[in-house]
Amino acid sequence: MYKNLLVVSLFLLFISCNEVSSNLINVKNSEELNTAIKDAKPGDEIVLANGVWKDVEIVFTGKGTEESPITLRAETEGEVFIEGVSNLTFGGEYLVVSGLHFRNGYSPTKNVIAFRIDKENVANHCRVTNCVIIDFNKLQRDNDDLWVQFYGRHNQLDHCYLAGKTNGGPTVRVDLKGNESIKNYHQIVNNHFGPRPRKGGARGETIQLGSSFTSMCPSNTTIANNFFEECNGEVEIISSKTNFNEIKNNVFYKSEGSVVTRHGNYTMIDGNYFIGDGVNANYGGIRIVNTGHWIVNNYFYNIIGENFRSPLAIMNGIPKSPLNRYNQVTDVVVAYNTYVNCKSPWQFGVGTNIAQKDVLPLSEIRSARPVRTVVANNVIYNKVGDPNPIIEHDKADGVKFKSNIINNQGVAFNDENRISANSFELATVNDFMYTPKNISNEIEPYNGFEFEIISNDLVGNSRATNNSIGATIKGNIVDPKVLDSKKYGATWYSSEPVAYEAKTIEVTSTDDVSAKIAEANNGDIVSLSKGKYVIASSLIINKSITIQSASDNKAEIVFEGAENTPAFELNPYGILTLNNIKLSGTGSQQAFASLKENMFNHFGLTVSGCDISNFDFVLKVYKQSFAEEISFVNTSISNCENGIELSEETNDRGDYNTEFLTIDKCQFTNVKKNVIDYYRGGYDESTIGGNLVVTNSTFTNSGAKEDNGILLNTRGIVNVNIEGNTFTNNRVKLVALLWGAKNNHHSNNKVQNSGKILVEENLKMKLMY
Amino acid sequence: MYKNLLVVSLFLLFISCNEVSSNLINVKNSEELNTAIKDAKPGDEIVLANGVWKDVEIVFTGKGTEESPITLRAETEGEVFIEGVSNLTFGGEYLVVSGLHFRNGYSPTKNVIAFRIDKENVANHCRVTNCVIIDFNKLQRDNDDLWVQFYGRHNQLDHCYLAGKTNGGPTVRVDLKGNESIKNYHQIVNNHFGPRPRKGGARGETIQLGSSFTSMCPSNTTIANNFFEECNGEVEIISSKTNFNEIKNNVFYKSEGSVVTRHGNYTMIDGNYFIGDGVNANYGGIRIVNTGHWIVNNYFYNIIGENFRSPLAIMNGIPKSPLNRYNQVTDVVVAYNTYVNCKSPWQFGVGTNIAQKDVLPLSEIRSARPVRTVVANNVIYNKVGDPNPIIEHDKADGVKFKSNIINNQGVAFNDENRISANSFELATVNDFMYTPKNISNEIEPYNGFEFEIISNDLVGNSRATNNSIGATIKGNIVDPKVLDSKKYGATWYSSEPVAYEAKTIEVTSTDDVSAKIAEANNGDIVSLSKGKYVIASSLIINKSITIQSASDNKAEIVFEGAENTPAFELNPYGILTLNNIKLSGTGSQQAFASLKENMFNHFGLTVSGCDISNFDFVLKVYKQSFAEEISFVNTSISNCENGIELSEETNDRGDYNTEFLTIDKCQFTNVKKNVIDYYRGGYDESTIGGNLVVTNSTFTNSGAKEDNGILLNTRGIVNVNIEGNTFTNNRVKLVALLWGAKNNHHSNNKVQNSGKILVEENLKMKLMY
Repeated sequence: MYKNLLVVSLFLLFISCNEVSSNLINVKNSEELNTAIKDAKPGDEIVLANGVWKDVEIVFTGKGTEESPITLRAETEGEVFIEGVSNLTFGGEYLVVSGLHFRNGYSPTKNVIAFRIDKENVANHCRVTNCVIIDFNKLQRDNDDLWVQFYGRHNQLDHCYLAGKTNGGPTVRVDLKGNESIKNYHQIVNNHFGPRPRKGGARGETIQLGSSFTSMCPSNTTIANNFFEECNGEVEIISSKTNFNEIKNNVFYKSEGSVVTRHGNYTMIDGNYFIGDGVNANYGGIRIVNTGHWIVNNYFYNIIGENFRSPLAIMNGIPKSPLNRYNQVTDVVVAYNTYVNCKSPWQFGVGTNIAQKDVLPLSEIRSARPVRTVVANNVIYNKVGDPNPIIEHDKADGVKFKSNIINNQGVAFNDENRISANSFELATVNDFMYTPKNISNEIEPYNGFEFEIISNDLVGNSRATNNSIGATIKGNIVDPKVLDSKKYGATWYSSEPVAYEAKTIEVTSTDDVSAKIAEANNGDIVSLSKGKYVIASSLIINKSITIQSASDNKAEIVFEGAENTPAFELNPYGILTLNNIKLSGTGSQQAFASLKENMFNHFGLTVSGCDISNFDFVLKVYKQSFAEEISFVNTSISNCENGIELSEETNDRGDYNTEFLTIDKCQFTNVKKNVIDYYRGGYDESTIGGNLVVTNSTFTNSGAKEDNGILLNTRGIVNVNIEGNTFTNNRVKLVALLWGAKNNHHSNNKVQNSGKILVEENLKMKLMY
Repeated sequence: MYKNLLVVSLFLLFISCNEVSSNLINVKNSEELNTAIKDAKPGDEIVLANGVWKDVEIVFTGKGTEESPITLRAETEGEVFIEGVSNLTFGGEYLVVSGLHFRNGYSPTKNVIAFRIDKENVANHCRVTNCVIIDFNKLQRDNDDLWVQFYGRHNQLDHCYLAGKTNGGPTVRVDLKGNESIKNYHQIVNNHFGPRPRKGGARGETIQLGSSFTSMCPSNTTIANNFFEECNGEVEIISSKTNFNEIKNNVFYKSEGSVVTRHGNYTMIDGNYFIGDGVNANYGGIRIVNTGHWIVNNYFYNIIGENFRSPLAIMNGIPKSPLNRYNQVTDVVVAYNTYVNCKSPWQFGVGTNIAQKDVLPLSEIRSARPVRTVVANNVIYNKVGDPNPIIEHDKADGVKFKSNIINNQGVAFNDENRISANSFELATVNDFMYTPKNISNEIEPYNGFEFEIISNDLVGNSRATNNSIGATIKGNIVDPKVLDSKKYGATWYSSEPVAYEAKTIEVTSTDDVSAKIAEANNGDIVSLSKGKYVIASSLIINKSITIQSASDNKAEIVFEGAENTPAFELNPYGILTLNNIKLSGTGSQQAFASLKENMFNHFGLTVSGCDISNFDFVLKVYKQSFAEEISFVNTSISNCENGIELSEETNDRGDYNTEFLTIDKCQFTNVKKNVIDYYRGGYDESTIGGNLVVTNSTFTNSGAKEDNGILLNTRGIVNVNIEGNTFTNNRVKLVALLWGAKNNHHSNNKVQNSGKILVEENLKMKLMY
């Protein structure tokens, strides 16, 4: 880190020194900007006036030099806002953009920032620094784009903060199509990748390096010293798909995904931190496919992910794999890593699907086990002993284990020839970082082929002296303070939420509820006093808000709006909690619905202690709408034509409409169809949602109009638990058809006159690739 | 070349200087050798006594240094013969082997020379120089091996002569399994690769760099300044299957194959000579698969190969190809090459097989056309105008053409937007090398991305001044004398045949024919005076020999040997020409047959003007026997149970028993089955033989016992021509079943009461991969 600080300081020094001699050109609008760009010479600084720049497409061309770049910067860092339909493209050499804030808008093209103008004009030695991009999402989730797309060579994204991408497409992608963009040595460094919400399907990576089509290209991209916080978009946080990349000294903090060498080879994954909480099993580690990767000096804390998300997941490959599928793992080195309180940290043969050979073509069967792979000099510490530090989904017989130790608190495990039990202790560096101490000198690090290139440890100490197994050498380790978010991202921007004390807005039945909701701030509570609220048109929910009865006596909302309109219209950012309300319609409307289009940000819904009746739909979610969580708890739903409808993502590309759907202690009575209808389509081992929990509820006289004869439709949902429910007199063939090979379960249900619960081991799915 | 001479001279100087100070250890047998190796120190020279070393397995271990290698050399260069069951393996560093001659034997292992002892002990900085390997073949053709197998890094094969490999397996292979063997920078330089006979199937490359399984590995192997003469083993002379290799300044002289970038990417193919004769269409050029190759400064003369063998063959790929099949061509540069008197030198979409989509799985369909590919600054000269300098097997719409010219003698062609017609002339350098002159200065070389790396021309002149399109810059070119074989291979070995004037051995019917044949030398004629020769046991043919009647009156050979034995037993090296002989058996024997096993070298057979009758088989060829050519001309064949049987390679891996089978002006009468039975099995687009010609012959009353009802069995043979024959009263369903998609033709045949000739466009074949 010190080195990085030094680089930053030198750069700032350089900027400030330069300012004296550079030519400042102040611009106030697009015309002035374009003219300034056209006329710019090496050393020029084009200064954008503070304020909002709306609908501006900046085409930054020019030829600076290494000593005298051309700079385009905010008058005051962070006080120039790029909004509306705007983007930025680079074409030329030694161009720097600094201090801009992209918000309240989206790109008119396939990328917000692109390091090329067109195929013939790529950028080289260009840089985006000290900028922020937040929520700059396309209006429709399926309208994919990239926020930063690299082309050319030697370009850099540094000290930026990027957060909130909800639509399809990686946040950052390096593109290698064309010799101009190989051997690129791009630098993605010192950035803060803030929360990326769950995407509900594929194409939600934070960084993607190339694609399978360029997986043979030498890329040489560096991703270093970045902070990844809650990057939950999909199962891959970083998807490396090219060769010779370096992923070094990054922090992956509470991020629901993994660093994956999805395609390409010879990635160096060195000295990264993977910090979980020991509770959320979606936080992952490093997942390995292909040849020649080195995973060294990494530190894993409280990562309990399994299988694809395990701290170290070495996959099985497909023999002679198609270009876009899974090559065998060969020639991989996993050395000098430390795992503290991780669950079954080493998993081999991940993704084996030999059992599914009857429903999948041969070209999809991952049966090729890792070979010529070395796992050496690693340290595992478990506060509570783990009976299975290694899980072999398929045999790890092509892996050589050397000089690995574990303190398993004396708990037996079956791999003592691969990891020696040891009673070493931990030294505390800070509240998430512990390093082994008192490892016996007799445990010599194994000296594998070219291990001398592992010359430093996790925090940069030389391994030449005091070398030891594990991520850190012997001796005291100075706290690297890697969770200090000030060390990353734009200097002028803080992602810490502004403190706000939620207020309660009291409403009586003579008030205009709609207006009261509109005047509420994010996080506020709208409290309805007892009474009947007749509502003529939809209540707009476009922020996080709670609506509840002021007392135990339920307030009663009667929705008399037009047919096919919702009582509560869930808009982008609309996170509604509805507590203790009686809600009824006149039969032809929806209780809750998303917008039909332009759901450019996620919504959310929690319904608790409510009575809902007389609607056409309880919840109607349209295509390209997505909620991270939807819950119905302690709620009765009766006399509706349709129940909870989350089945619009029918393109079978792995997408779905909500990550978590929870139904607990609810009563469904006389809901005629789509009682629960939750769908994810397409065979894709790497989208591993959604999540359906149906517990302690009753379903009575429902499903009679269901075309397919299934009461609870869960097709393609990966995690399903149906437990402790009572199904009575539902005129269906099946209560549910579950997917045995996935994480689908049912237990303790009472089923009376309602068909049955069927489990099919291998559901046939459309191949996505 | 001058540079290379300098290097050689310096090396010789180094050797001779070193001799003064080095420690000489003379060894006379294996024990002394092993002791010497065990005790060797840097700078030591172990000297093998002149003579034959039989059944010796040399395990050369040790640690020399860059300045003081450990050398193992012949007492006198070329007078130490390694024979019998012998091999050489290296383990260690800076070890040199020099002056040995491997002959009259074969390796007990999978390689004659290997740069490793075992998986744990590979060689680095080791070298084989000034050695010869000739005909060092395993006894059985299917017992594959390699003559030189590289492992480790920085090893070298230089100034060696290798010729005559007939069994399966590349002559030289670089192996990359394991990180110890990647980034190897091996040098294969200044060697003479002498004739490699046609292999009759796959696995006959002269050099293979890696395999599809290691096709993601960086190899960085150099193949430079070698002479490839008649390297006819298979369709690939050099098969590059890894990344970053360099193939530079080699000469491919009358070699029936191509340089192929079969797997892997970013090969530099720079300044090579491809010299054909304008007659043999099997001489190829450069065939391109995959990404990022540069084909620059190459010179093509008289290459008339088509399709896979065209001077420049850019293949179609399989979309998302499996690892071992065909990736799409992308990002390839073809620049500054010269083509003189080549036929349709540029072929695109080679290997497209969209038409076969009904008989092949989708994963075999090559429909992905080249993209992001540049063809620029090339020169084509045709003495006789070529209407199709470009052939598009599939559209070349992803290829950019810039600054290419052609002197097509005014003959129109359809690609004038891709190649400009021009009336430049040629300057003569020597009898196969011509360079363009008088190209107008207006034709500026196109300056594509990174074209500046093409800094020199074919003969090493700088392109900084006098640059021009084509392989050579403007101005006079000094004859590089690249066909002077003295410049390549072992200094002490000449591959020129020793002059020998064939003698004629007169034989009368009272002589022992067998003894006379035995006393003949290679190339001699055994002349039988008129009369009847009753032979009781097989005549052994183990050299090139002609047996003929002394006069127009046919001598008569009556074979009375045991059943299932041949009149003429074709042994390894046995090339028999039988002219004007009447040959008969007693019904149960074979007229000609190979050995049943151990055919460690090819045979050949030409039968002309003979009468053959009363045999069980006319020709019976056993599995793993191979003839380059078999001809029957002007010969009558009658009253035999079986005809010409060449169908033993039934493993469906693309192998077959003869390359060329020619039947011209023959009469087949009452041959009951297998009249002609010639088979090649397996779907493999890269074995493009055998070759069957049946012309001007009659087939009468034959095939009555043929199980499959086909008179001429040609299944899987790629090139078939049946023309001008008469088929009368043959009790078969079909005269022949031809393969329309391949080069199978029939014309001008008379067919009477003999079934018909059927052409099936796409024969179903077993997939080989």
